[in-house]
Amino acid sequence: MEKIQEITSLSNPQIKYIKSLQNKPSLRKKEGLFVVEGLKIFMETPKNLIKSVYISDNMLEDLSKGKGFTEDIRKKALLKLENISYTKISDDISKSISDTVTPQGIFVIIKNFKYDLKDIIKKNKAQTFLVLEEIKDPGNMGTIIRTAEGAGISAIIMNSKCVDVFNPKVTRATMGSIFRVPFIIEETLNNSIKLLKENGVVTYAAHLSGSEYFDEENLKGSVAIFIGNEAKGLSDEVTKMADRLIKIPMEGELESLNAGIAAGILMYEAKRKRV
Amino acid sequence: MEKIQEITSLSNPQIKYIKSLQNKPSLRKKEGLFVVEGLKIFMETPKNLIKSVYISDNMLEDLSKGKGFTEDIRKKALLKLENISYTKISDDISKSISDTVTPQGIFVIIKNFKYDLKDIIKKNKAQTFLVLEEIKDPGNMGTIIRTAEGAGISAIIMNSKCVDVFNPKVTRATMGSIFRVPFIIEETLNNSIKLLKENGVVTYAAHLSGSEYFDEENLKGSVAIFIGNEAKGLSDEVTKMADRLIKIPMEGELESLNAGIAAGILMYEAKRKRV
Repeated sequence: MEKIQEITSLSNPQIKYIKSLQNKPSLRKKEGLFVVEGLKIFMETPKNLIKSVYISDNMLEDLSKGKGFTEDIRKKALLKLENISYTKISDDISKSISDTVTPQGIFVIIKNFKYDLKDIIKKNKAQTFLVLEEIKDPGNMGTIIRTAEGAGISAIIMNSKCVDVFNPKVTRATMGSIFRVPFIIEETLNNSIKLLKENGVVTYAAHLSGSEYFDEENLKGSVAIFIGNEAKGLSDEVTKMADRLIKIPMEGELESLNAGIAAGILMYEAKRKRV
Repeated sequence: MEKIQEITSLSNPQIKYIKSLQNKPSLRKKEGLFVVEGLKIFMETPKNLIKSVYISDNMLEDLSKGKGFTEDIRKKALLKLENISYTKISDDISKSISDTVTPQGIFVIIKNFKYDLKDIIKKNKAQTFLVLEEIKDPGNMGTIIRTAEGAGISAIIMNSKCVDVFNPKVTRATMGSIFRVPFIIEETLNNSIKLLKENGVVTYAAHLSGSEYFDEENLKGSVAIFIGNEAKGLSDEVTKMADRLIKIPMEGELESLNAGIAAGILMYEAKRKRV
């Protein structure tokens, strides 16, 4: 571990910059950077994506004494910190940067990354894609990305009206999946959906007016599942592009399921049937 | 609509009382009351459970002019307000009471309600029960209750370490399901699990060390699904009471799924197989 400097002033420009990166999607986009918080996600961040690391006094003490961590995590964390230059920050600064009630004391500035859908589509293999339109809630988005990893989704395609995936609340809720699930963000979904269909991917829109229940569908081969906004569902424009409309059966007087839950149920149904 | 009074002072004792009911689980328990916010949930509240209603000037104006509501919802709301005594509050008070960023301007104090598991278990019918241990996140709890309605769960049994179901964040996330899904809250889960097993309900613990995947299980007949805390999972004590341990298959490097997603996938798997 190489200590470069220590920051103790809340008005230090680096600290102001971190806060701006956390709060401003436009700055994240312009700079090609985002900030994550916490030891777990630091451990999951590929080394080549790390631009800089800030660690609080408390966290450094806890790490050196092993307080609050298992020996395994502590060793791995110390190993990862070797050969990484980091900046020490006071606990007050850590609190002021943190997006959470109980700050974790480690902040990482990360270079953002992009995927190309063309590179991901494989014609000779059954794949599942998720298409998201205007998912607004950061918790939902993070949970969807996390579930997508578990369900083996090949890529998530989302329009730019979705909440920014590099929003700190989203990255935290992904539990590290942000680095492992490919995602494509586009102004509109048209081109990606066209590309999927040209490559033989059958497209299913989750829609309350769906005529068939999801578990009666074939879902073999490559499929894409469309999930819409939490309140409004899918737009007519995107719905029309789908080959089929499917719905999840609901008992009681419920109008709809939570978007994250609907996505989870459908992704796992696709996983179950994928051959 | 009968207007009883109008409150304009933030220090009015009734206003302070509403805020305390929102923030203090102990007061909710002692008084047997809780508060919900919003027109949708007011519409879903059974009339016999309503103790009192508070409506802001803005909401009353919007309702009388039909602003922001469909004609159908407006008519139904006005109909429900007939014969209900309500208290008018200023917009400032509405903002100060509200638990949300954009206050909806209608607050309802509701008498809480209880269920008895014995009345719910039916020996001659396949049922699904959900058993929750220490679910802490209000959004997760609300979403689980909402999904449980859709999946036709007969009752949710939870220990008292779970977040209070009458917490405003929980009730809001249930989207009205709080009134329709029976729940049983107990100090420990032991007695309820015993009762389930005595009545032939097969119990499944969702556990990372589960030996079988959930979709390979029978899940026919009456079943109960156990879901544990977001970070720790199920305790050893509760895990031991289950007939079987099941896991949800996960690809990638994911350690676990979000508790709400796991509950959703398993409840819908049970629904799919329930006969």
